[in-house]
Amino acid sequence: MRILMLGDVVGKVGREAAETMLPTLKEMYSPDFTIVNGENAAAGLGITPEIAKSLLRNGADVITLGNHTWNRRDIVPYLDQEPRILRPANYPPGTPGCGYRVYTAQNGVRVGVANMMGRVFMEALDDPFRTADKILESFRGQAKISFFDFHGEATSEKTAFGYYLDGRASVVVGTHTHVQTADERILPKGTAYITDVGMVGPQDSIIGMNAEIVVQKFITQMPNRFEVAEGGVVLCGIVADVDPDTGHATQIQRVQIRDIH
Amino acid sequence: MRILMLGDVVGKVGREAAETMLPTLKEMYSPDFTIVNGENAAAGLGITPEIAKSLLRNGADVITLGNHTWNRRDIVPYLDQEPRILRPANYPPGTPGCGYRVYTAQNGVRVGVANMMGRVFMEALDDPFRTADKILESFRGQAKISFFDFHGEATSEKTAFGYYLDGRASVVVGTHTHVQTADERILPKGTAYITDVGMVGPQDSIIGMNAEIVVQKFITQMPNRFEVAEGGVVLCGIVADVDPDTGHATQIQRVQIRDIH
Amino acid sequence: MRILMLGDVVGKVGREAAETMLPTLKEMYSPDFTIVNGENAAAGLGITPEIAKSLLRNGADVITLGNHTWNRRDIVPYLDQEPRILRPANYPPGTPGCGYRVYTAQNGVRVGVANMMGRVFMEALDDPFRTADKILESFRGQAKISFFDFHGEATSEKTAFGYYLDGRASVVVGTHTHVQTADERILPKGTAYITDVGMVGPQDSIIGMNAEIVVQKFITQMPNRFEVAEGGVVLCGIVADVDPDTGHATQIQRVQIRDIH
Amino acid sequence: MRILMLGDVVGKVGREAAETMLPTLKEMYSPDFTIVNGENAAAGLGITPEIAKSLLRNGADVITLGNHTWNRRDIVPYLDQEPRILRPANYPPGTPGCGYRVYTAQNGVRVGVANMMGRVFMEALDDPFRTADKILESFRGQAKISFFDFHGEATSEKTAFGYYLDGRASVVVGTHTHVQTADERILPKGTAYITDVGMVGPQDSIIGMNAEIVVQKFITQMPNRFEVAEGGVVLCGIVADVDPDTGHATQIQRVQIRDIH
Ligand SMILES: [Fe+2]
Ligand SMILES: [Fe+2]
Ligand SMILES: [Fe+2]
Ligand SMILES: [Fe+2]
Ligand SMILES: [Fe+2]
Ligand SMILES: [Fe+2]
Ligand SMILES: [Fe+2]
Ligand SMILES: [Fe+2]
Repeated sequence: MRILMLGDVVGKVGREAAETMLPTLKEMYSPDFTIVNGENAAAGLGITPEIAKSLLRNGADVITLGNHTWNRRDIVPYLDQEPRILRPANYPPGTPGCGYRVYTAQNGVRVGVANMMGRVFMEALDDPFRTADKILESFRGQAKISFFDFHGEATSEKTAFGYYLDGRASVVVGTHTHVQTADERILPKGTAYITDVGMVGPQDSIIGMNAEIVVQKFITQMPNRFEVAEGGVVLCGIVADVDPDTGHATQIQRVQIRDIH
Repeated sequence: MRILMLGDVVGKVGREAAETMLPTLKEMYSPDFTIVNGENAAAGLGITPEIAKSLLRNGADVITLGNHTWNRRDIVPYLDQEPRILRPANYPPGTPGCGYRVYTAQNGVRVGVANMMGRVFMEALDDPFRTADKILESFRGQAKISFFDFHGEATSEKTAFGYYLDGRASVVVGTHTHVQTADERILPKGTAYITDVGMVGPQDSIIGMNAEIVVQKFITQMPNRFEVAEGGVVLCGIVADVDPDTGHATQIQRVQIRDIH
Repeated sequence: MRILMLGDVVGKVGREAAETMLPTLKEMYSPDFTIVNGENAAAGLGITPEIAKSLLRNGADVITLGNHTWNRRDIVPYLDQEPRILRPANYPPGTPGCGYRVYTAQNGVRVGVANMMGRVFMEALDDPFRTADKILESFRGQAKISFFDFHGEATSEKTAFGYYLDGRASVVVGTHTHVQTADERILPKGTAYITDVGMVGPQDSIIGMNAEIVVQKFITQMPNRFEVAEGGVVLCGIVADVDPDTGHATQIQRVQIRDIH
Repeated sequence: MRILMLGDVVGKVGREAAETMLPTLKEMYSPDFTIVNGENAAAGLGITPEIAKSLLRNGADVITLGNHTWNRRDIVPYLDQEPRILRPANYPPGTPGCGYRVYTAQNGVRVGVANMMGRVFMEALDDPFRTADKILESFRGQAKISFFDFHGEATSEKTAFGYYLDGRASVVVGTHTHVQTADERILPKGTAYITDVGMVGPQDSIIGMNAEIVVQKFITQMPNRFEVAEGGVVLCGIVADVDPDTGHATQIQRVQIRDIH
């Protein structure tokens, strides 16, 4: 079976590109299950229930999040109502929302999906490695196929997470840097891996944001308010094929479409 | 004219792959100038004069470095003797070695090369943005073509550096994460850009290092000594074409060869 | 001559305590010059022109700032109008305001004052060590006495800054952690030093902020809005005696008054 | 009953001062229980079994550690053999050694002692707040008195930990910055607290290390090998009085002796 994942959707232009392109992508790749990282969907920071509903209506089977989960207050109750949205699973017990769940794909196959967050250069969350062990344990018997979105900064931590789950998870992808990496591969024991899926956001930008404003930040070191950039969109994602009998991946390919207007 | 750059060469297997492949790459791409990042060439950490000489003898016109510049003590005097090796230019005044210089390519064209280091999640060096202004100033009249290796961690800082030099530098590439990114492009004003060139190092690894040892580090949080991994090598680089009359880039393409034995 | 310095004034209760106590402190200690760090004076984050004016009217000869300099937009033009307020001097050239200046104390003695910021665990500013060399150079001939407020996090960086200026500056004090340290001393070559002056802010608090809210932040790792705590204030400062002929310090003592209501 | 704690003992001079002064301190303060942080006892980094034995023989009832626990390999098996040495309790399960234990003081009273580590600007350990809950649970019925050494960098995290345990632990002290703070106090619900106990180490130094070498590090940003400084020692500690019936603290005072030769 085939899983399609789109990386961090940034702002209105990113959302519109994702929603417009999802039918085309589905025709092109025929995925059985589609995951979209939505942590930057609301003006670049966080997501609202309305935006989440729109993404779910327009082709996402599950939305994952990241360090910007909490930027919009109104998402908090929604996280407990909507089973198709996940926040990083290694927030401490008692955190609103849920970090992993088993879903049924279009083809009837059960897929465990988990959202994780790294700790290198990021918040001090619970150990994502041990958390993943528990999640895999809970998936056992429920779903042979599992997909982990590891939202993280450092390439070493993300790849280490991939190797840690190698042969135990079907797919491990990184998100958060907004730049797609070209290291997609099947790890030795059968897990499909990529360090970062990349974003769905304005191409002529710095990680989706207005380049001039971000450059200004770096040269002045004074705080300023980032704005989502304008113009054509780059849509980044991956397509992974998983053998439903073994749960092992057989293929992972990058998707990158530039200049979407 | 054409510039070939190879990313961080990791350990003996990386060196051997780089040196073995450089003649083939030169036949394939016919570069006029070749730059190699060598900061991890000596057992994964730093570089020695012998290793530098070998890389220069086997096809590198210039070696750039990064945060691991100082890992091997014997490289320090060599940095002041050999003009074809650069350490990050934004170390404070008085630092051994040099961070930028104008070279003459095989085709007689003058090329300014600079090695820079980022500050996000890294050492507290001098402002790389203002340092780049001074370097470009010193290149003026000496070389119309300039190449910047920005050794950095955060995608935002690296891309901001690219935009800051857009139209003023010919090529800006990132190094340090050891994972090639798939965002190579010509920025709006004519600078070729990629967030990370990637490494030349063992493929079945975590950023070139033995995966088991690195995973152990993450799950125990105890210090341990990383070792360069074994097995087939992935060679990552880029090829950029620059118009010698304008100094603007006309093309950038990624090079990635997997499973080199 | 004698210099009095009060550490980071936090919120309205901190301001009121500082302003109420300054006359008493001046009676007790008879300082010739008084410096107040005001970076948290406006509801815990930043400072406004009105608050600055009030502090200056009520006994501060100079206000220093820190990483919260830019939290309130309306302070920016004021920094260029009012010579008695300083922001960290190692922001890049072109930053609004000024980081050091020579003032005339009550007793007619000229005193150079500089505000600096550390880089360990903080913003990527210019090198505070080299910046201090330039500042001392500019003070030469203008003022024999100099006072540095080094706003920083790490004890190692702050103490290193003290040693770097030992014998060249009259007084080096740290600010920013909001907790007074007990290591006040005259360094070997004659500079008075303390790692942190401490704050003027609510005592039953976490660095001046409502304890419950801050604890909640640490246990949930979710963002929340800190609020200045209520109740009795702890006033922290130092008094340093400097020989106007040599510029060397002869004494430094901590000031700490608890339970101010 | 009375507990004496000495902060991070640095190097040979620190050890000698601690061991020489402990009898005097015991005569002066008559503590029933003595805790010493030994994470820097071996040449400034880590501790060896021999050094630990010597500290235990010369007056320490328990040794706590910190981020330098693992610097010396030979300590690892010792951590599992000697019940009187603790490493931070919030390392992941399976880590050698133990992080908390109940001891019997000289006066027969049972005292639970825990060593914790902060996560702000430090390693990605398990949540120290939730870990403390479990430790307190395990102390229940075993010991009414508890002592926490929270080894951490940020004043906010350390004070938050103090407030989190306020009324539940008898004493919470910080270690790690090597600079004693002057904020010792009884928190509202009865826990004795200080942000940092300070070190037992060379006074004319930067956190115990040779000042010239550390300054060099900051101005060059190049790695260098720190060395423990020489000369007179400052001994920093605290003495806390706890009511054995309630477990609440009644008093905390700082101990600081300078110029020990
Ligand atoms: Fe994102
Ligand atoms: Fe993110
Ligand atoms: Fe590298
Ligand atoms: Fe590097
Ligand atoms: Fe402050
Ligand atoms: Fe501050
Ligand atoms: Fe220490
Ligand atoms: Fe420590």
